[in-house]
Order: sequence, then C-alpha cells, then structure tokens
Amino acid sequence: MRAAGSALVTFAGREGGAVAARLGESLLAVARHAGVEVTATCGERGRCRSCRVKILEGQVPPATLQDEIQLGRDGVREHFRLACLTKVIGNCSVMVAPPRSEAGHQILGGGAWTGAEATPLDSGVEKHVVTAKAASGSSDPTSDAEAIAAALGETRHCDFPLDILRRIPSVLRADGGILTVTTFNGEVIDIEPGDTSSRKFGVAFDIGTTTVVGTLIDLSTGEQLASVRAMNPQAIYGGDVLSRIAYAQFDEKKLARLRASVLKTVNDLITEACREAGVAGAEIYKAAIVGNTCMHHIFLGIDPSNVGLAPYNPVVRSPLVAAAAQVLLKAAPRAIVCLLPIVAGFVGADTVAAVLATRLHESDACRLLVDIGTNGEIVLAVKGRLVACSAPAGPTFEGGQVQHGMRAAVGAIEGVDLDDDVSCRVIGDAPAIGICGSGLIDAAARLRDAGFIDASGMMGLPEGNRLSLRLKARFRERAEGSEVVLVGAAGSGNGEDITVTQGDVRQLQLAKAAIHAGIMALKAVMGISNSDLQEVVLAGGFGNYLNVESAIRIGLLPALPAEKISYVGNAALTGAQLALVSEQARNEALAIAQRIDHVELADHPQFEEHFVAALSFAVNDRRELGEEAVCTA
Amino acid sequence: MRAAGSALVTFAGREGGAVAARLGESLLAVARHAGVEVTATCGERGRCRSCRVKILEGQVPPATLQDEIQLGRDGVREHFRLACLTKVIGNCSVMVAPPRSEAGHQILGGGAWTGAEATPLDSGVEKHVVTAKAASGSSDPTSDAEAIAAALGETRHCDFPLDILRRIPSVLRADGGILTVTTFNGEVIDIEPGDTSSRKFGVAFDIGTTTVVGTLIDLSTGEQLASVRAMNPQAIYGGDVLSRIAYAQFDEKKLARLRASVLKTVNDLITEACREAGVAGAEIYKAAIVGNTCMHHIFLGIDPSNVGLAPYNPVVRSPLVAAAAQVLLKAAPRAIVCLLPIVAGFVGADTVAAVLATRLHESDACRLLVDIGTNGEIVLAVKGRLVACSAPAGPTFEGGQVQHGMRAAVGAIEGVDLDDDVSCRVIGDAPAIGICGSGLIDAAARLRDAGFIDASGMMGLPEGNRLSLRLKARFRERAEGSEVVLVGAAGSGNGEDITVTQGDVRQLQLAKAAIHAGIMALKAVMGISNSDLQEVVLAGGFGNYLNVESAIRIGLLPALPAEKISYVGNAALTGAQLALVSEQARNEALAIAQRIDHVELADHPQFEEHFVAALSFAVNDRRELGEEAVCTA
Repeated sequence: MRAAGSALVTFAGREGGAVAARLGESLLAVARHAGVEVTATCGERGRCRSCRVKILEGQVPPATLQDEIQLGRDGVREHFRLACLTKVIGNCSVMVAPPRSEAGHQILGGGAWTGAEATPLDSGVEKHVVTAKAASGSSDPTSDAEAIAAALGETRHCDFPLDILRRIPSVLRADGGILTVTTFNGEVIDIEPGDTSSRKFGVAFDIGTTTVVGTLIDLSTGEQLASVRAMNPQAIYGGDVLSRIAYAQFDEKKLARLRASVLKTVNDLITEACREAGVAGAEIYKAAIVGNTCMHHIFLGIDPSNVGLAPYNPVVRSPLVAAAAQVLLKAAPRAIVCLLPIVAGFVGADTVAAVLATRLHESDACRLLVDIGTNGEIVLAVKGRLVACSAPAGPTFEGGQVQHGMRAAVGAIEGVDLDDDVSCRVIGDAPAIGICGSGLIDAAARLRDAGFIDASGMMGLPEGNRLSLRLKARFRERAEGSEVVLVGAAGSGNGEDITVTQGDVRQLQLAKAAIHAGIMALKAVMGISNSDLQEVVLAGGFGNYLNVESAIRIGLLPALPAEKISYVGNAALTGAQLALVSEQARNEALAIAQRIDHVELADHPQFEEHFVAALSFAVNDRRELGEEAVCTA
Repeated sequence: MRAAGSALVTFAGREGGAVAARLGESLLAVARHAGVEVTATCGERGRCRSCRVKILEGQVPPATLQDEIQLGRDGVREHFRLACLTKVIGNCSVMVAPPRSEAGHQILGGGAWTGAEATPLDSGVEKHVVTAKAASGSSDPTSDAEAIAAALGETRHCDFPLDILRRIPSVLRADGGILTVTTFNGEVIDIEPGDTSSRKFGVAFDIGTTTVVGTLIDLSTGEQLASVRAMNPQAIYGGDVLSRIAYAQFDEKKLARLRASVLKTVNDLITEACREAGVAGAEIYKAAIVGNTCMHHIFLGIDPSNVGLAPYNPVVRSPLVAAAAQVLLKAAPRAIVCLLPIVAGFVGADTVAAVLATRLHESDACRLLVDIGTNGEIVLAVKGRLVACSAPAGPTFEGGQVQHGMRAAVGAIEGVDLDDDVSCRVIGDAPAIGICGSGLIDAAARLRDAGFIDASGMMGLPEGNRLSLRLKARFRERAEGSEVVLVGAAGSGNGEDITVTQGDVRQLQLAKAAIHAGIMALKAVMGISNSDLQEVVLAGGFGNYLNVESAIRIGLLPALPAEKISYVGNAALTGAQLALVSEQARNEALAIAQRIDHVELADHPQFEEHFVAALSFAVNDRRELGEEAVCTA
C-alpha cells in the first residue's frame, strides 16, 4: 500500500527494493533519502551533468531545457535525465550514473617539505617531565595540583583546566610520581604518567573544495611522518564553493551534514596517518588547518550562508584557536587546533598560507601567485605591498561542467598533441575515460593552433588542405554543437567517444577569462605591466600537470617567458605546515592577512572590460590590454 | 527458571514481582539493582540502622553482631536486619524501612541576605547593547565579528569563542543589528539579538553533605529572587563525607553516580528557582558554588578518593572557574561557574565562604566560628590571624546513628523540658516520630540536670525521691542498655516509643567531644583562653534550633555567657552570594583561603587528651583544661 500522491522508485543496484517517494519530489532527493549517493557538482542547479540518471522502466518524466542542454537530444531520447531537476511523476526504475570514484585520483599533497631544515622549531608545544610526589605527611596541607606545580617550578597558583584536574589524582600516583606535563605557550594541555617527552606530534591540513590533504609531523624534529589525502566528500553536494553554500544556505541540518562529512574525512585521514607512522591520536597536540573561507567556516560549524551573498563577508577573519575536543578533531582533547586567518569571503586562510609558504610578502621583486582551483586566488606582490583577488573560475579546470570532464585521475587525458592525427597522454597510461583540466587546456591550445578553434572560441572545420583527412574526420557537427573526437569509442575505457565540445570550449573561455581578468585587475591596481613581473608562482592541485606554454597560448596565464613561471605544489598545505611547526610563522600569517589588500573584482571599474577581452583566445597576442591588438587568428 | 547459586527476592510495595539475586549478595545491593531506594547513612559499614529491613517470608539470614548492636535482640528476633551486611541465602520477601522522606524537612537557607545594600555590585557580568550592521557594501572587506567588535568599540582583534561565533550571523541579522553582548571580566560569554540588558542573573549554592541550598539573584540589583533547598540525594550512599568517599573510592562508575545525583538536584533547584522568579536558565551568567572539599570534588567530577586517605589532601585547592556547559550546570552555556577555594581536605570552600560572610578575617577581636555539620568546621580569628580545623562530629547532630534520630523536620522533637514529667516541643506541632540534634542536646542537658545521666554519660535511675513517679516510670533498663521514653507509643506519630538510649548518649558524647576538643586545640595553638573570646559565631543548618544553654551545659560549646554566642544562619551560602555579586569578594575569598592556617587535629599533640576530657558532660564545669576540675555531678 502506498499513500495517494506517492510513487515507488527502484534504484538499480540498490538492495532492499523500491522506496516510496512523493510525487513532485526530485529524483536526487529520493535517491539521497534512500542512501544512494548521487554527485551534484553544480549544487542542484541543472548546470552540469554529474547527477544524470537513466529511467529504465516506468513513467519517464518530461525532459527540461537543462536536460537537453546538458545531456543532448540523444541523451534525452535515451531517457537520461538530470536527477536534480527531474520530478517523480509515477512509479519508475532508475539507474544512477556511477559516482565519481575516489580510487586512483591523483590528489596533490604538500610541496617538498623541508621544514626540518628551513624553519625554527617553535611549535609552542612543550613537554615537561617532572617528579612530583603526592604528599604523605600532613604538616603542610597542600594539594595534588600544587605538588605538580611545585615540581614544574611554578610558585603562582597554577591553572589546570578541569578535565586535566580530573586526571591528576591517578596520574600523580601511577608511575612513582614521574609524569609529563604538556603545555602550549605555557598553558597546560595534557598530563600523562611517565616520561613521554619524545612523543609530540602535529597535523597540518588544507581543506579544499575538492580535496583534503594533510601531513603528520613530529614536532620535536620537524620531520614529516605521513602524507594523506582524500576527496572532499561534500563534493556530491556541490562542486564549487557557491554551490556548496547554496546547498546549505540557511539550513542548519544541511550545514551539519556538510560539517560532519568533512570532519569524518579529516579524522579518517588522521587515523590513517597515525597508523602509517605508529603514532596515537592522543599524541597529537597541535593542528594547523587552512582552507578557503567557506571550507573554514563549515569545518568549524560556522554558517557560511552570508559568504554566498554580497558583499560576501566572512563571519570571522581573525585566526582562531580551539581545543580539539571542541571541534571534534581526533587528537589529544586539549590539542590546539589553529585556523589561519582569512582575508575576505573568497580569499581565505589557504591563500594566506600560500603567501606564507612562498614568502611573497618578503620579496622586493614583483611576483604573482596564482592558485588555480574552483576559485582562482591571485596575489600580486610589488615591493612588499600585497593585493589579492578571487577569480570565480568554476569547476572547469577540475573537470566540472565539461562533457567528458574528470579530475586528474587514472584514465584522464592530461595532454594532447596534434600532427597527422590526435595523440593523447592519459594518466596511468590507461584507456581514456575522460579529460582533465590540463588536458582540456592542451587540447584547446592545439585545436586553436590547427585552426579548429578561432580567437572567439568558435569551433569549425579549418578551410584548405593543411590538415590530414584523419584529423578532419575527428570534427563533427551535431545538433548540440560542434565537437572534436580525441579518443574514439573503440579506444576509450568506457565505450564512449571522448570529445571536446563547443560547450567545453565556452566553459574553458569563461574559466580562463576569470583568471586572466583577475590578474589584469591586480596589475592595474598596482600600476604594473607584464614586463615588470619577475616571477609567476603557480600553486594548487592543478598546476602539477599543466603545460605552461598551452596555458599562455590560450590566455590563462600572462605572456611571459616560460622560465619565469614556476610551480610550487600545494603551497597552502606548506604554509599550514609552517604554522604547525613554528609559532613565529603562525604569527606571521596574521601579519600577512592584515597586510593583504583585497580587490573585489565585481567592484573593479575595468573588470568587466578585462573579462570580455580575456574571453578571446587571442588575448595574449596583444601586448597589453589597451595597446593595439595583434591578432593572429 | 533461575540459575544455580541464585535466589528470588521480593520487595514489599515494589511492582513487577520478585527479582533475581546471587546467593551471598547483600540485600542492599539487590534492592538498589531493583531500583528500590535504601538509605545507608554510614556507607554500608553496619554502623547505623538506616538501611534496616524486615524479612517477611522465606529464608531469614542469620543475624550479625552489628544487627544485634544496631537493632537490638528484639529487633533481630522480629527478623529485622541491616540490609548492608545481610547476605541472601535463599528466596525471601523483604520490607524496606521507609526511606527518609524529603517532605517537610526544614532545610536552612542562607542567612538574611542584605547583599543589595551591603555589597558593591561588581559581579563581573556586563551586558553591552550595541547596534552593529552587517556590511552591505564591499568597499572595505570586513567580517560579522569585526562589525560587532567595532560597535563595541574594540579596535584589537576581538576574541569570540567558537560557540559564540557560530551564533553571530543570525544574531547580527535578527533585530536590525541591535544586539546584546554579555561579558565576564571582559571576555565574551554570550550574544543575543535585541536589547536584553535588564536580564542578568546568577545563582549561589552551598552543596552540603546532607542538604543543598541555593538562591537566585538579580545581578543588576543584588536582589534575591528565589531561595531553594533540597536534600543531597547522595545521602543514601553514606551520611557523612567519609562514608560518601568510601562508597565511591577508586570506582569511576560510582563517582559518576554521585556526581550525576547532585548535579540533577542542583539543576532541578535552578529550574525551580527560575520558575518561581520568571527567569530563563539561559539568563543565568554566573554561579558561585561552595561546599566541603568532598562535595566540591564530586560536583566537578574530580576523584575524592585521596581526600579520604591520610594526609587527606585535596586534588586542587585554588579557586576554579569553568563554563556551565563544561560542568553541565543549567545556565547560559558559557556562564561562569566559580568554585571558591579550599583550605584542606576537611576545611573546604564552605568554610572559606563562611569566613567571608562573617568577616572573621577583618576583625581585630578574638572570634570563633563554629559550623556544626557532619564535620564541624571551626575557625578561630585572633587579631587577624586565622586558624581552622575540622572536627569529625559524625551524623549524630543530624539524627544519624541515633536510635530514633531524624533531621530537623516535621515530627522531630527539637526541644525537651523536664519537671513532673517530660514535655517535648515537636517541629510542626505534629505527633513526634523521632528526635533531631537540638532535641537530643536538650534532652541530654535536662536528663543530666535531673540526674538520669552522670558526668561520664552513664544512664541510670536517680536515687532519692526528688523525681516524680511519672518521670521515674520513663526510665527503662533493657538488654541493649538503659533508655528514657520521651514520647510513648500511644502519643507518637508512628506507634513506637520515642526514646533516648544509652547508645544515643554515647554517640552524642563522641560528637560533642570532637567539636569541643577542636575548639580547645585552636585555642591552644593561638594561646588564648575562654576569657579572651569575645564572640562565638554559630553557623550552619544546625544552629537554628539549638538551645545555646543546653549546648554549653553538655559541653558542646565553650562556657561563655549566652549573649556572646550569636547565630548567623547558613554563612557558607551567604559567602557564596557575596562572591556571586562581587568579584572583589570572590578575590577576597582566595586571600582568606591563603591566610587560614590549617590545624590537623590528628597531628595536634594534645588533641587526644582534649578529646578524652571533652567526652565528660562536666567538661565546662572546670574553667580550663589543665586547671582544677570543679565537677558538679
């Protein structure tokens, strides 16, 4: 029996049979209630195809315009639908597109960590081994706490927090009075029986929109003991920060769900790192955590709703310190969890950490830091002055909203060459199953070289006989727009043609124009030109696989000699590690955050102009915006 | 079916039928497992009769020596047993003595509270009403937290704790930016929408071994809004501190049980006070709590095991401050819970508070403070110098270990007169059901006057014809010892004779000798005599009903003119109230605790001598110990 106004929905592969759904409820909601994981990268807005499902049997809901745009007419005809927008109209049986597997994903860890040599070790965590005797005579009445304080050489009334006090009677009597008191900047945070002075550890984490990376470090030596990484499980609720905020906006339960999912990931990673290094969670006394403003707020359980609304203000920018027990981090209960400071709603603690790691703030040179993620954070340093902006690149560089897009994982096309035909480099030398950001940039650059794409981004078959027939055969006109087949169905890993579509190129244009225009805006604020730039530092998970020349060719990066562009890995994590092992570095992070002037691109008078100009693939062919353009295509 | 080695025990009046018990298990343990409340005032040591049960049917376990001592041969013959020591030997049906009812108990609240006039109001709790606007333009990126800090007039990076930060986004936008920030000594402890500046409250509590008393106070005016009191529910696990410690010693689960029971009582009392005064729990921002060392430790979840072992050291003596959420107190989550400092294992925060309330530390006069409870805390001030001791009086003054003893509640004999016959004053003018401490002291004094008790405490029928026949008829010799019937079975409220027994007189001697010898010891330490004493201040729940002349007659208090002895009520609670409304007073409490020299009676060279001398009812008939005794009996 089912109630009027309801229907039964069966999910292929799910055990337990059909589930009840209300008529009009979205298939995505029905799936999630039933415990079926469906990725919705765009935040349930019909702007990507990650949540696509196929109606196998029963009543097929009518297709929406977004279904046609994202899935094509063929897809719609084959009963593919976007689960986020498709409403249940009656009983049906549904197959969900496989969720993006985490296996094999190449997530970037920290940069080469040389903390042990380069950084003074002043984590603030100190272990004091003392011998304190519980009083046995009664001539001078005292207390257990005072016996320990006296052994520590403290004469003032000592401050043991209540949870530590509760452990004092047993610890004091456990090991003949030998015990170890752990302090952070002088405050008691732990007490253990015996001499444990050789065991003090810390973790550093960069919580990104897409990935979470961390390291376990010995605070006595600065040595990195383990490096761990995972996808951010919140990704199924929205691929970029704005989608993530939209999902949880003004909804405490959804915020709690996002928080719990990332907390579980971080704690699982700590467990994994501890296992690898032979360390107990209770031996972790400090954590340094960075992330963009939204990830920072969600991790702490702070509502990020207003970060998603103009003027995009964070709830708090100052550096925060909390006890591990308070934020539910797997560590000693009073371990110090340090969140680095924030500059603005879209220039977060990760950017501050990246500046700290690259020492951009110290340089007299004119240097540019570009961290290309779903938001591209850009910092320009000119003689010690720092300006920053956030360019909304969207998930394109991470494979989002791209027809065959995927993260840089096994099976992803990461590089493309064109001569008589197309040849692709695939991560893991596996059959291709999709294309990642660096592959898309490479493909766009080569297709533009070959004439398949003009300066405006329009795809077409080049005229004349310059091209081989095989190459020409890869071009197709379809109802949804033109496309070029990179790998045919016969050679791919999933039996589909892997293509670059007109839509993909448009997405790429929007993404790279955002970054380029952001760089232009900062240069304009500082009054410098490309020739003043002495170095471009690329950071973030993306830069690892990037062909710098292709990036310049399509106008993502400024037109500089390739040798001026360097890649520093995950600088945000490196910065977190610095703050972990050095309180001086952590204090420096605050000074950096206070020194960075934030440029809100939406308010910048010329941003719109820069952005429109940067949409062109020929943007780097002119020397500077405003100078005479020298178009080559 | 029941397992071998087990038996079925039925408790009269309990629903649900028989419960399974292991052979050899104590009846007390079986009862508690079955949810039947049984009071065990002496801590399951066979030293009182509070846990007596009657075996109605089935196998009657053999009587122990303690059964005979506590219950008498008649009682044993009638199948009364002490549940704590009686082991199950087979199926049986049992009637438990009714647990001591809490109804009608006269628990002493604070002394007359004149805080509003006498004490400067500086509770440390301040409410700041500000108008803070969430930024609407984007010219100067800031954060919600900074908007509030700016409105507060703070320029530095403001410290909002994480749980407060979580509430900032909604509070800032709830009431047009009008909000109230509550601080304690400058630290932010709450944030609420709108102007709530007129609502700030606090609670003061004295957690005693037997009773818990508290008041709700308006921190803006100092006005007392409600006064609440309850029995300490831990009493069923042991009537005095040592029994309570013995119950939970080195047993975390039992400690947790004790803690939970007193916490529930305190929170229920807060709820009751709030209801009475029309205050919400979340409007309570400060609590000042006192209690003896054991109650203090248990309330905080600190193991008091070692307080019960020589040299009786506390785990901590310094004043403690914790958030309400941390100690699970019903109040605003960050309300400041202040525990006053401790002097020694048996001179606790309640004594410090009593000194604070009586200003003993400020006096140039020679003054004595006596707080008669299960432990008698005694403080002697001589020209600003303070010495204190704790005299183990035991529960006698509160009716414990007295044949017909009970607390000062409705039905308790609180005063006794002798002329031709005995006449009793009964609390509530009800038929007598027992005798409380003041009644016992009065009875002993009058019985000694009439010659029923000699100086050594031996009971007997006075020789000669001075006494009326009715009076003489009240004296009985029984196998268990002599006794005097105060109220016959026909006139009593429970159909039993209410008597004073030889055993009761012995208990009274032990109790009053402890107090007297404690006073002697402090006088000896200070080198003063009774004639130097300008005032004796009586405090605590006991003093309210005490006939001072009787107390002097039996040698409980020093032989001073009655006008030099004053009663100040529950000075410990008054002290807690002072610390609640005044940070200056709270700081003074620390200074007091540090100034009090603790005298450990067990170490005092003459204590044993004093104690033996003080056992005599004629101790006050000599002028000073060591001078020639002038015995009158």
